[in-house]
Amino acid sequence: MQVAAGARPISEVGEFGLIAAVSNLLAASRVRSAGMLLGPGDDAALWQPRAGRVVCVSTDMLVEGVHFRNDWSDATAIGHRALAVNLSDMAAMGARPRTAIVALALRGTETERWVYDFYRGALALAHKWHVRIIGGDMSLSPTAAVASVTVNGELRNSEAVLRRDFARPGDVIAVTGPLGLAAAGVRALQLGRTRIDGAPAMLAAHRMPQPRILQGMLLVRAGVRCGMDISDGLFGDLPKILEASGVSAEVRADRLPIPLAIRWNFPDWFDLATRGGEDFELLFTAPRDVVEHAAGLFRRLRLPAPVVIGSIMARKGDESQLTLRRFDLTRQDVPFGAYDHFSAKPGTHG
Amino acid sequence: MQVAAGARPISEVGEFGLIAAVSNLLAASRVRSAGMLLGPGDDAALWQPRAGRVVCVSTDMLVEGVHFRNDWSDATAIGHRALAVNLSDMAAMGARPRTAIVALALRGTETERWVYDFYRGALALAHKWHVRIIGGDMSLSPTAAVASVTVNGELRNSEAVLRRDFARPGDVIAVTGPLGLAAAGVRALQLGRTRIDGAPAMLAAHRMPQPRILQGMLLVRAGVRCGMDISDGLFGDLPKILEASGVSAEVRADRLPIPLAIRWNFPDWFDLATRGGEDFELLFTAPRDVVEHAAGLFRRLRLPAPVVIGSIMARKGDESQLTLRRFDLTRQDVPFGAYDHFSAKPGTHG
Repeated sequence: MQVAAGARPISEVGEFGLIAAVSNLLAASRVRSAGMLLGPGDDAALWQPRAGRVVCVSTDMLVEGVHFRNDWSDATAIGHRALAVNLSDMAAMGARPRTAIVALALRGTETERWVYDFYRGALALAHKWHVRIIGGDMSLSPTAAVASVTVNGELRNSEAVLRRDFARPGDVIAVTGPLGLAAAGVRALQLGRTRIDGAPAMLAAHRMPQPRILQGMLLVRAGVRCGMDISDGLFGDLPKILEASGVSAEVRADRLPIPLAIRWNFPDWFDLATRGGEDFELLFTAPRDVVEHAAGLFRRLRLPAPVVIGSIMARKGDESQLTLRRFDLTRQDVPFGAYDHFSAKPGTHG
Repeated sequence: MQVAAGARPISEVGEFGLIAAVSNLLAASRVRSAGMLLGPGDDAALWQPRAGRVVCVSTDMLVEGVHFRNDWSDATAIGHRALAVNLSDMAAMGARPRTAIVALALRGTETERWVYDFYRGALALAHKWHVRIIGGDMSLSPTAAVASVTVNGELRNSEAVLRRDFARPGDVIAVTGPLGLAAAGVRALQLGRTRIDGAPAMLAAHRMPQPRILQGMLLVRAGVRCGMDISDGLFGDLPKILEASGVSAEVRADRLPIPLAIRWNFPDWFDLATRGGEDFELLFTAPRDVVEHAAGLFRRLRLPAPVVIGSIMARKGDESQLTLRRFDLTRQDVPFGAYDHFSAKPGTHG
């Protein structure tokens, strides 16, 4: 009996066959990088950042059942996502990503096709941003697959970077795009309501998140020095900036870019948008004229304009406070809150 | 009721409490690194290699039940091991390790103490080699804990490196230390024979493997250009050099540094030593005078002398061959063979 190409379980193909096949896939990838000295196939990979550049490193791990489900995303989307969350960390620093390392631990029951599709998803995104996958590791994880990716990026110098501890009173707070789409996508999948109005954008935001790399680099170019990516929701992440910078903030509910489709479909749309997480838009603070300068750079590259959602102010006491100015113009203290991986149940976050 | 410090399950402590505690642990670590620009606590970490140096990157993942078992190793040993396997990849390149990134996915039922012990194990080894842990990731993995570590190292230039494809006919083959100790340690644990003669050295080799960083750097200094670390056993790893370099080899059984305690205790001692793996000694090839030069450098630093075990020769046909000259001086073709993660049963390799 003939088995369809790529349908063999990887326990039959074996680690070494699989590594050889994936190395070929990587070698065939069309990204040529001047600084590449030694690619996959040796104990470690070599690359050299251009002289005078600062190396920026990030890592993120995706665990089956926690960060992805095979019945909700196909392997291509999972590969995309594994790289995307790391590229988003580069965007969150304003860095230009250069190389990625992919470690994959598999159950052994996945098909070859699953592995190739995973790499295809990662490679497609890598190509888009001229990132080279320079190496990795493959091993067994009998109970749940794990993908762990590390990305190296470059910065012009160590001052031109988006940090969390540089918010200053008088800064305005802005985001690069809509809030809550990814969380709404997870919710739609949980409820089996994948045909509601606006669902394609929600599902795409969850399955194929787009790192805001260009925006991050332009923000740094414009002179923004404080920023991060929104992975734990606005009310989970903004407090990290406030505490690191020793400041407070007021956010205006009527300014939050929450898509209408989320408001219409989910009664708890405000929580979804502010605490749902995984949006990977950038959150940043800067003086208003710097934000306007950034908006001008965005416009020139036809990127959506950043949205100002509030402002930074001095602390009143020892603690950072986050105040929400509600739709009825009353003010409310916002409890700091984010998705907590260890307390939440697997596969239900959002 | 009072709970002992560190005995809370981490599902109670929560991800953010744990990240804060671990960040403190890392900040208190005494390694000061000139190139460090921004440490843990932001979206990514920054570091800058000294001008003119080449960055070398490696990653390795440890999965519970596959690469470690909590009943065989304590958390400190697991933390040590997670970093050690990566440092060994640096040693295998002849690179000087500088920074590490640690991603940890936990079941949620581990105690706080487990996590701190894990980091203590990693930090102790990091201190020893002046490596700075500059960041990481923490998430949930309900069915098996996973530790994924990425290390960045430096090389003087891209020629001064140990590669797999630089073995030349006429080279001798050498290793930096004994073979089979780690595999014998795993075997002793499997059989419950942890009190046999020589067991402490075997168990230590499995639990707290020592990366041969100094040896790797000295080999490069001496002019060695071909080498790797032995993670899949001599007969699993030497073929990788032979195939990458397009050469064949003869290994002399009587020259293999196999400790007497392994020969005495295990009937299959020869397979244990040549196919067991996880020894993390370095395997390298070079002209005899270069190896003697390296031996001189080793001696000056009171490191054990490298052991010559065979020689490289030209291929006879299209295929690389590995010949074993046995104790009775007869010759035997060695089938290439290594531990295959996807075909082997979890927790039994060695």
